[in-house]
Amino acid sequence: MALDEFALIGRYFRTAQLERATDASATALGIGDDAALLQLAAGQQLVVSTDSLLAGVHFPERYPPAELGYRALAVAVSDLAAMTATPLAFTLALSLPTVDEPWLQAFSLGLAAAARDFAINLIGGDTTRGPLNIGVTVLGQVPAGQALTRSGARGGDLLCVGGPLGDGAAGLAVVQGESLPAGLAIAGQDYLQQRFWRPQPQLLLGQQLRGVASAGLDISDGLLADAEHIAESSGVALHINAAQLPGSEALSAWAPRQKLDWMLRGGDDYVLLFTLPAREKARIAQWRAAGHAVSVIGSVHAGSGVLLDVGKGYAPIAGERGYQHFRSAND
Amino acid sequence: MALDEFALIGRYFRTAQLERATDASATALGIGDDAALLQLAAGQQLVVSTDSLLAGVHFPERYPPAELGYRALAVAVSDLAAMTATPLAFTLALSLPTVDEPWLQAFSLGLAAAARDFAINLIGGDTTRGPLNIGVTVLGQVPAGQALTRSGARGGDLLCVGGPLGDGAAGLAVVQGESLPAGLAIAGQDYLQQRFWRPQPQLLLGQQLRGVASAGLDISDGLLADAEHIAESSGVALHINAAQLPGSEALSAWAPRQKLDWMLRGGDDYVLLFTLPAREKARIAQWRAAGHAVSVIGSVHAGSGVLLDVGKGYAPIAGERGYQHFRSAND
Repeated sequence: MALDEFALIGRYFRTAQLERATDASATALGIGDDAALLQLAAGQQLVVSTDSLLAGVHFPERYPPAELGYRALAVAVSDLAAMTATPLAFTLALSLPTVDEPWLQAFSLGLAAAARDFAINLIGGDTTRGPLNIGVTVLGQVPAGQALTRSGARGGDLLCVGGPLGDGAAGLAVVQGESLPAGLAIAGQDYLQQRFWRPQPQLLLGQQLRGVASAGLDISDGLLADAEHIAESSGVALHINAAQLPGSEALSAWAPRQKLDWMLRGGDDYVLLFTLPAREKARIAQWRAAGHAVSVIGSVHAGSGVLLDVGKGYAPIAGERGYQHFRSAND
Repeated sequence: MALDEFALIGRYFRTAQLERATDASATALGIGDDAALLQLAAGQQLVVSTDSLLAGVHFPERYPPAELGYRALAVAVSDLAAMTATPLAFTLALSLPTVDEPWLQAFSLGLAAAARDFAINLIGGDTTRGPLNIGVTVLGQVPAGQALTRSGARGGDLLCVGGPLGDGAAGLAVVQGESLPAGLAIAGQDYLQQRFWRPQPQLLLGQQLRGVASAGLDISDGLLADAEHIAESSGVALHINAAQLPGSEALSAWAPRQKLDWMLRGGDDYVLLFTLPAREKARIAQWRAAGHAVSVIGSVHAGSGVLLDVGKGYAPIAGERGYQHFRSAND
């Protein structure tokens, strides 16, 4: 793009809401030099994750730009929540086909809303002309040695989930204008759309899990696919009891079979899945009292893979684990 | 892409050369979890920079993939050199139109060569199907308070450059098969191509500038455009004496006017431009003795903007400052 177009774009991103969304004490030098400078607190490790969002792959072509801005950051921050990190800062690599000012205005406002909600500052970026591509790198910090990884689950642990399952997939059905069940009230539609448009990374719950949970991640590809990641990294078998899976009231408007499929295989929930040593069980009631909708959905055993009980005893899962929406036809 | 395609791609990037290019003592947790973990040394600040490279915008469509892999990382690392940082780690967000194994093989080998040359580990990434887009985020560390920014230049300082100017632009002419001057030997062509394909960020010189230079950056948009950034950030005038600009022997094959234009406005040189308090002048001979081709090209004065002397006294620059190659026709 020409230099004046870059200056124009800068106007949308060099805003106080984006650069100083949080107190910014960690940001020693922000946007405008060759690189940004961050000061980690003593005894902390840096947590780093990169995500790209492409139109038609990760979201529908006609996604509203404000929601897209929010979502791009929320999805990346969810990886910080999964490591139990505290957000520090993010960079944005944005490729845009044209300089569309109303689009930029809405996108940057959505991004700023997420930056404020997750207390994370924009510290750098790069804007180029090209097909729409949103690259976000998030940085966080965690006390040294306390990050939660996928590899610590042990036999006897409880398997827990941090919130309702399947809302992301049901929200997508609502957003895409699919025919909806008669029992789904307007309030339920609103709830599900909001769950899809503006995922809420479980940062506070994540921080509660430091030094307590044994393994964890965020559910982005679907419960079964992500449980498989923990089982494999930890070298254990995970047993999941379908009867214990938590679903929202709105999701109950669908037939039980559709509801169960979304809870097991739906993506985009961005709730935490973690294993908890049995001695820590009393924490669950404390977390629930503090507003975190934690549920026990199974247990950890010697062995390998993910076994599911749908009322007939635990058995290995048949068929595809994860939900692959928006993938191109030739995938 | 389908999951098996992702697994295939992973084979090219999850290599020892990329994940353990350096001793890796800073990498507490690398690729494979929700995020990577880094441990900074005590008393260090984190340096962060993000760059995107798009075919047709930042490099010719038919760029050889090994050179592209090298260049994508080199260009990003040059921003660390400009801050006088030591590289720690990088993430790669790669969007690819198809899974082309020979292309991936060559690209990853070029990337690995750069990772080894600059002692920087791949710690995370994201691969998606889409138009070719290479997003690199580099992380480095610098002793707290010693990073070199653009804003510290003061009247009386010397203006210095860390290596020859114009090679990037001349190298592009060679690479693009433009008609070359008769006096350009094969060895000179090779030299210039190499300068274009594989820029060498001045990391070691940068580290020598810590606590010594007053302002600095890397020349990516051309000397005049980047000098303007220092002048503006520091609130000073920079005087540049054209007779003092260092150019390679290969560049001298072109007519003096073309040579001067490339030295002033050519991009892609990735050498450091910095200001040095006059009391530090003796360092220049030390740096040159150590193999860093540092030259004094001007001086810092009260005032604003960049003034150029081409033999008729210092005058403000007329015309475009920077060299905007590969930009699309409607830019």
